[in-house]
Amino acid sequence: MSNQFICGTSEITGARFSIYPMSDRFVSIILSALKTVDTSKVWMESDDVSTCVRGRSEHVFDVVKAIFLEASKDGTHVVLNATFSNGCPGDSAGDVYLSENEMRLNEKNSLLIHQDVAVQFALYPMGISTYMDVIMDQVALAKNQGTFTKGVHYASRLDGNAHAVFKTLEDAFNGAHDSDSTHIVMTVAMSANSPSKKEVK
Amino acid sequence: MSNQFICGTSEITGARFSIYPMSDRFVSIILSALKTVDTSKVWMESDDVSTCVRGRSEHVFDVVKAIFLEASKDGTHVVLNATFSNGCPGDSAGDVYLSENEMRLNEKNSLLIHQDVAVQFALYPMGISTYMDVIMDQVALAKNQGTFTKGVHYASRLDGNAHAVFKTLEDAFNGAHDSDSTHIVMTVAMSANSPSKKEVK
Repeated sequence: MSNQFICGTSEITGARFSIYPMSDRFVSIILSALKTVDTSKVWMESDDVSTCVRGRSEHVFDVVKAIFLEASKDGTHVVLNATFSNGCPGDSAGDVYLSENEMRLNEKNSLLIHQDVAVQFALYPMGISTYMDVIMDQVALAKNQGTFTKGVHYASRLDGNAHAVFKTLEDAFNGAHDSDSTHIVMTVAMSANSPSKKEVK
Repeated sequence: MSNQFICGTSEITGARFSIYPMSDRFVSIILSALKTVDTSKVWMESDDVSTCVRGRSEHVFDVVKAIFLEASKDGTHVVLNATFSNGCPGDSAGDVYLSENEMRLNEKNSLLIHQDVAVQFALYPMGISTYMDVIMDQVALAKNQGTFTKGVHYASRLDGNAHAVFKTLEDAFNGAHDSDSTHIVMTVAMSANSPSKKEVK
């Protein structure tokens, strides 16, 4: 694979994400969140558009959740946009982080933060003709977990406590990864403290 | 298809997108942009997480570009996140808009706005094993158009004037649509007026 479109190996999970605080103080909110969260178990690189974290799947989810919760905990309207990916053919940057153990470094602190969120997410199991079946299986999982609200155009909606919603996202991503597709992509738009009237039904 | 994951017909293009002004005035910036843009040739619905527009491909791109340019033209740091989709099996809401002619309602006004942008985008041609070839063909197109900057993990980066960059995005989306895949998804993160130091090389 050339460097025209860089992905990862089949073992490593990555997330390219951004935090958008709808506030004049957006720079300090983002930097403060990044500083608070322990990212020592993931490879991480930021540019002017987004941040990329790579490593074991559980640490990628741990870090993204922790940064979002830190950024939104003061009540500011904050949105997370993230693309999670596993199995894209490509380079090996960050592969060394796969040797980390499974203990999540930020979960204890994250659990101290209560935050209701609204999410629209979509799964893209690449390379197989039966991808809609994979998606439907994970929608069924979300329903079983009680976080699924409804289908919307091009996405499924989840509502609830951030910890429950992140668990569904992680389980759906891992569930899709156990399918016939070897390259799974999941997009997430997560909103906290929105002043808009929620329309969840 | 049930309502668990609603998509579209093979003719209709849709975009689910959000505008994030990093400002205390985010509500008025968004509402003002929505009010200024002519959306009469697309089906449109907003909720507390995002806005969905559906119709002929050119009008979907016309509306999304116009709203982003209106929201960012005063110099506020504004980000667009969008998922464009064509060919997802599903319902028919908005199909009536396919009878509109091709004249773009907002292009004249949009061309009056000069805005440099940085973009990370990714194409997901669904249902076929040769999806990486489709992606590479459209990366080559972006290189030919002079907007491609580099590959980053999980995305390709474009830089330049918003009109040139939007043209590449629309052409890449349409180019992928002409491939063996009948269901094309494209994600876009576009940033304007970022205070971060650009790292484009």
